[in-house]
Amino acid sequence: MTEFRYELLAQDGKARLGRIHTAHGVIDTPTFMPVGTAATVKGMLPENVADTGAQILLGNTYHLMLRPGAERIARLGGLHKFMNWDKPILTDSGGYQVMSLAKLRKITEEGVTFKSHIDGRKFNLTPERSMEIQHLLGSTITMAFDECTPFPATEQQARESMQMSMRWAKRSKDAFVNREGYALYGIQQGSVFENLRRESSEKLAELDLPGHSVGGLAVGEGQQIMFDTLDFCVDMLPTNKPRYLMGVGKSSDLVGAVMRGIDQFDCVLPTRSGRNAQAFTHRGTLNLKNGRHRDDDRPLDDQCGCPACTKYSRAYLHHLIKAGEILGAVLLTWHNLAYYQDLMRGMREAIAEGGMDAFARDFHAGQEGGDIDPVPIIED
Amino acid sequence: MTEFRYELLAQDGKARLGRIHTAHGVIDTPTFMPVGTAATVKGMLPENVADTGAQILLGNTYHLMLRPGAERIARLGGLHKFMNWDKPILTDSGGYQVMSLAKLRKITEEGVTFKSHIDGRKFNLTPERSMEIQHLLGSTITMAFDECTPFPATEQQARESMQMSMRWAKRSKDAFVNREGYALYGIQQGSVFENLRRESSEKLAELDLPGHSVGGLAVGEGQQIMFDTLDFCVDMLPTNKPRYLMGVGKSSDLVGAVMRGIDQFDCVLPTRSGRNAQAFTHRGTLNLKNGRHRDDDRPLDDQCGCPACTKYSRAYLHHLIKAGEILGAVLLTWHNLAYYQDLMRGMREAIAEGGMDAFARDFHAGQEGGDIDPVPIIED
Ligand SMILES: [Zn+2]
Ligand SMILES: [Zn+2]
Repeated sequence: MTEFRYELLAQDGKARLGRIHTAHGVIDTPTFMPVGTAATVKGMLPENVADTGAQILLGNTYHLMLRPGAERIARLGGLHKFMNWDKPILTDSGGYQVMSLAKLRKITEEGVTFKSHIDGRKFNLTPERSMEIQHLLGSTITMAFDECTPFPATEQQARESMQMSMRWAKRSKDAFVNREGYALYGIQQGSVFENLRRESSEKLAELDLPGHSVGGLAVGEGQQIMFDTLDFCVDMLPTNKPRYLMGVGKSSDLVGAVMRGIDQFDCVLPTRSGRNAQAFTHRGTLNLKNGRHRDDDRPLDDQCGCPACTKYSRAYLHHLIKAGEILGAVLLTWHNLAYYQDLMRGMREAIAEGGMDAFARDFHAGQEGGDIDPVPIIED
Repeated sequence: MTEFRYELLAQDGKARLGRIHTAHGVIDTPTFMPVGTAATVKGMLPENVADTGAQILLGNTYHLMLRPGAERIARLGGLHKFMNWDKPILTDSGGYQVMSLAKLRKITEEGVTFKSHIDGRKFNLTPERSMEIQHLLGSTITMAFDECTPFPATEQQARESMQMSMRWAKRSKDAFVNREGYALYGIQQGSVFENLRRESSEKLAELDLPGHSVGGLAVGEGQQIMFDTLDFCVDMLPTNKPRYLMGVGKSSDLVGAVMRGIDQFDCVLPTRSGRNAQAFTHRGTLNLKNGRHRDDDRPLDDQCGCPACTKYSRAYLHHLIKAGEILGAVLLTWHNLAYYQDLMRGMREAIAEGGMDAFARDFHAGQEGGDIDPVPIIED
């Protein structure tokens, strides 16, 4: 069996090249985790997600506990088998999505009660139940149960919320049943307040967990405030353990956060945007619904090796989207996931060579340069 | 270059094992052609359609002429390149779908005028324009422009309709620009009337086209009347050319029609049903939406080698469908296409061995035997 551990391979400024060893294999970091909310990365076969370079997926405890149910997934052999993905899986604790999706939520020190947004059934979620669910799912990386402090919050609100999350982190650790190669991550809270982030980090240090995430960011504060907060809060976490920034983000967020010491990311952006005709490229964001692509036989992104870019024209992708065809969503999702993985691979190579600053400059120049010039449209 | 030709390899009763040689490769017959209406087999990558064993796709002239437009596809290199499918493509003439989908249709001897169901734009379609469109698309097999006689029709109505279709067949032949390895098929009409089917066949014989289809069936007459009609009308077509039954059908239709001498089929059933939670198996039709599958860790069909059956449980497929996930539609479409191709392969092997009667008996016994017994449902 493999012990769960983080291996730091190289550093360039604050950016870290590393490797996380787990029971389900190795994760090269910095890494981006595609989101497989309901035991599927929407529109993708898992082997094709792996083809893009993904080494770990995220699953959503909230969705899975409601449907098909954690006990059912456990009976069916666990989430890995259920969804045919044998690499690492990280599950969130459910708390964040209860607050954003469920009805009639009520938070107490004990935990949270709510009604399902699917059928109105009543559920409760506590640190103990969240650990049990994630155990039933067989998650490689379990997240501690926390409250994601909303933004903006006063210092007093942020303190109370963070302190409850730290009490819940302790209860999460007590309830977590460890297996070799599996891990429980603690979540740092404290909103944008340096003193609270420090207090949170000190509480987490007492628990000596094998990994950490930065919580309470990417909740509407904007990139500048997020970066300003990362500038101080990441350094408060141990350097010998992975650091995960939850729910982030745009490609420029990833580059900026890696340069501030983050190792792991997840976000619905590449998959959700793919279903909405948006494609991310090294020349910025394209909307394939736009008529400018109608007669364009060039690839979406000539630097990308994904099927959308190597086997089809922009005109075809545009056609699929105008016709409402499933394949349009599939191909753009595939491309966006490939683009994100290429971006992470590029950053890993840059860190290894000490070239992260140059990489970031090239990245921003590409984004600002914008798309290639359109071809003339011919109306028949 | 390859000459377009049909090679008869074996016969068992009226069932024929053969091969169609085309500019885009060989088609083993009897064959089933998945429908790629709008330049995509809905929900599938073309390479995965090929993985199921498909050797030829059908494209719809009506849909493609409206969007993205035949001239546009021609400028983009033709339909094969546009949709990344290098094997044979058959396109219908557009006539049938104008009558079932377009608005304000008006038929005259010249052809048909109509308004697009997408944006109301006005179009006309004549034998000459249908040939031109199919040429622009680069179809391997072009269908003559015809009127699909509705069912029921009086003998007089059926005669007038058939005779106009035969005049249109002559105009189609005159307008068709041949290329080596490509073909124009004539369409036999005459509804359920033996004398009219004979008259239609004699008119077609004068044109000496390289293939034929049986038109005007599978339009609501039911399987028994369809089989009764096939019993006499297929024999009227030349034995040295392929015979295609348009828009058919259910698996039992395919078995019955092969035993009546049909070589080619197309139908939206496997793809459309796949998007509606229906799966076809050698034990009959299943609805994966049904709660009986909720805790069932067995494969959809243990005799099928497709990804839906080899990598996932019925419980997972059921979950995807209940959650409205794209992957549910994708996997069931894939399975249904694989089932159809397996069925055709089974028939080809049976004909080669002279065992078509036994194959049909086994097929019907399997369908009537029904699904495996359900597993108990556990409510958590
Ligand atoms: Zn791409
Ligand atoms: Zn299957």
